[in-house]
Amino acid sequence: MSARARLTPGDTIGILGGGQLGRMLAQSAAAMGLKAHVFCPDPNSPAFDVSAFHTVAPYEDIAALDRFAASVSVVTYEFENVPGPTATHLDAIVPVRPGARALEVSQDRLFEKRYLTEAGVSIAAFADINSQADLDKAIEVFGGTGVLKTRRFGYDGKGQLMIRKAEDAAGAFERLGSVPAVLEELIGFECEVSVIVARDLDGTCASYDIARNHHENHILKTSTVPAGVSEETARAAGDMARKIVTGLDYVGVMGVEMFLVRDEAGERLLVNEIAPRVHNSGHWTQDACLVSQFDQHVRAVAGWPIGSCDRHSDAVMENLIGFDADGWDAVLRDPSAQLHLYGKAETREGRKMGHVNRISDKTA
Amino acid sequence: MSARARLTPGDTIGILGGGQLGRMLAQSAAAMGLKAHVFCPDPNSPAFDVSAFHTVAPYEDIAALDRFAASVSVVTYEFENVPGPTATHLDAIVPVRPGARALEVSQDRLFEKRYLTEAGVSIAAFADINSQADLDKAIEVFGGTGVLKTRRFGYDGKGQLMIRKAEDAAGAFERLGSVPAVLEELIGFECEVSVIVARDLDGTCASYDIARNHHENHILKTSTVPAGVSEETARAAGDMARKIVTGLDYVGVMGVEMFLVRDEAGERLLVNEIAPRVHNSGHWTQDACLVSQFDQHVRAVAGWPIGSCDRHSDAVMENLIGFDADGWDAVLRDPSAQLHLYGKAETREGRKMGHVNRISDKTA
Repeated sequence: MSARARLTPGDTIGILGGGQLGRMLAQSAAAMGLKAHVFCPDPNSPAFDVSAFHTVAPYEDIAALDRFAASVSVVTYEFENVPGPTATHLDAIVPVRPGARALEVSQDRLFEKRYLTEAGVSIAAFADINSQADLDKAIEVFGGTGVLKTRRFGYDGKGQLMIRKAEDAAGAFERLGSVPAVLEELIGFECEVSVIVARDLDGTCASYDIARNHHENHILKTSTVPAGVSEETARAAGDMARKIVTGLDYVGVMGVEMFLVRDEAGERLLVNEIAPRVHNSGHWTQDACLVSQFDQHVRAVAGWPIGSCDRHSDAVMENLIGFDADGWDAVLRDPSAQLHLYGKAETREGRKMGHVNRISDKTA
Repeated sequence: MSARARLTPGDTIGILGGGQLGRMLAQSAAAMGLKAHVFCPDPNSPAFDVSAFHTVAPYEDIAALDRFAASVSVVTYEFENVPGPTATHLDAIVPVRPGARALEVSQDRLFEKRYLTEAGVSIAAFADINSQADLDKAIEVFGGTGVLKTRRFGYDGKGQLMIRKAEDAAGAFERLGSVPAVLEELIGFECEVSVIVARDLDGTCASYDIARNHHENHILKTSTVPAGVSEETARAAGDMARKIVTGLDYVGVMGVEMFLVRDEAGERLLVNEIAPRVHNSGHWTQDACLVSQFDQHVRAVAGWPIGSCDRHSDAVMENLIGFDADGWDAVLRDPSAQLHLYGKAETREGRKMGHVNRISDKTA
């Protein structure tokens, strides 16, 4: 629908999903004079508190989607698992950005890996798994190890099984739920890194500096910039990210997760996963860059030019998970820290409640 | 009322006034996990779009004030002309910060000048004017020149008359409206500068770097940091600002406007005016500091410790006044610029519609 539409200050941007990412998108939109309309089934969505308009309805409620679409100039989303029919229905009325193709490839690990291969970026070897027999065969090819992941709806380590020896593979397809899956080669990587890349309607791309990510219990704990990689590796990361968004004719911000591998051949990167949205590992940009990932996403989906991804400071982002958030007072007493809290009604174990950005003078 | 109350994330901060300052305060509150309740008579208040709650009612509506006070943990304001009875009524129910004394001195130029003198900071000579005879006498003492200002409700050059020669004084008291006034000595200053200072419940003070301000048509056009003053002058500015807030047992952010005078004796500062709130000349802190003036004010009035006022970048803030805001697209194309728009429904000549912060590497 009117795929080249550009917004004007005062227009309304529609956001599917009312969690912290939707909230921070709405905040960036407002800072630049746009209104936000957040659509989310959860009546306690944190994004509602900072948005001019909101709708509480299931993503399948066609009448609610129609009213929503009629009230906004563009629709974007905070999560990649937007139901396909929802996106298709909206896109017939109002532009949906980043767009249907981005959702397609990121909702299915097999499609994603095929697309990444086609885009010419390096990824770990993988196999399409639809049965235990497929798994047994692939495990043999991969030398007895691998990571088995459901094709759809996996996140934060959910929907995956590690296969470190032949016995782990026995019955693994059923243990994962007998659903379509992929087996990934098990990579000995030093750490996960990520690149946040933005692309606007005119095809201009820019990427933020690569960040080094540290996970605890399969949930992102910290992202650190600079990442401690060579200039060549940093450049290669940006190049790969740009290839990925360009091949999808993508509009908006994407998070590209990669494995950093160090072996006798030197340093190299393998793309692990893409997220067609703002990304937790890019929250450091709020306090270490003039233009944050949220600003860039809003600018791009509004049909506006993206801005500079330059960084003025070094940064460490730390997630406040569950009762970590009770330490907000200590964060306020740290002169290098900025506190970000999401206004969630209830603190729960494992729930992302906020984050802290600590900045320092730029060293590299 | 419970003057030491400290808020917890999830609590609600009440804000009197729904303009751009209230809006940016509400945005900072939300970023730190607080909810905002904005009280403003104007149903089109820009702050409503980014606040969890709002009330549309006159400041004199006691029932509305009671409901408002019952729904918040603290009240602050975006403008110094909060009616005295409004502040008094609220303060009997819930803490009002920065507090009644700050309003008293900043609502009346005579009280303000008397307080500043008492606080031991330098100001221009002044006289209390209640008649044309008072004016004639004072003008003679001041050598035939001066600036005549109403004691109350002056802003952006309104409510004042310049007296450059004896004839200007004739009938000036009546021309100003025959209201209580002050005559200020006419100072030959190089420019206006300002300091944004913050003070928390524990009495800790911090001030941002001094900014050099440039006005057009009596409205602030730009604020530039560094201001191009000596280290001694910069230090003196911070010291004066701290004296002023400490003497008032002030809690929150204050804008302190000063004249920079350069003569044979060197560089010196005269305090011109104080504003018991966040200040237009402090908007640069949003993009050149980790903790902005809005963050600091929210922290202080929430009973939280204030943060660092350190600056990571040089900055020039430019107001977008009236149809300046139509140039938003060019701002987006400037890689050094961050666009801030207030979401006002209607563009009008002389109306503050937004601002731009341009940052560059820190030089001093």
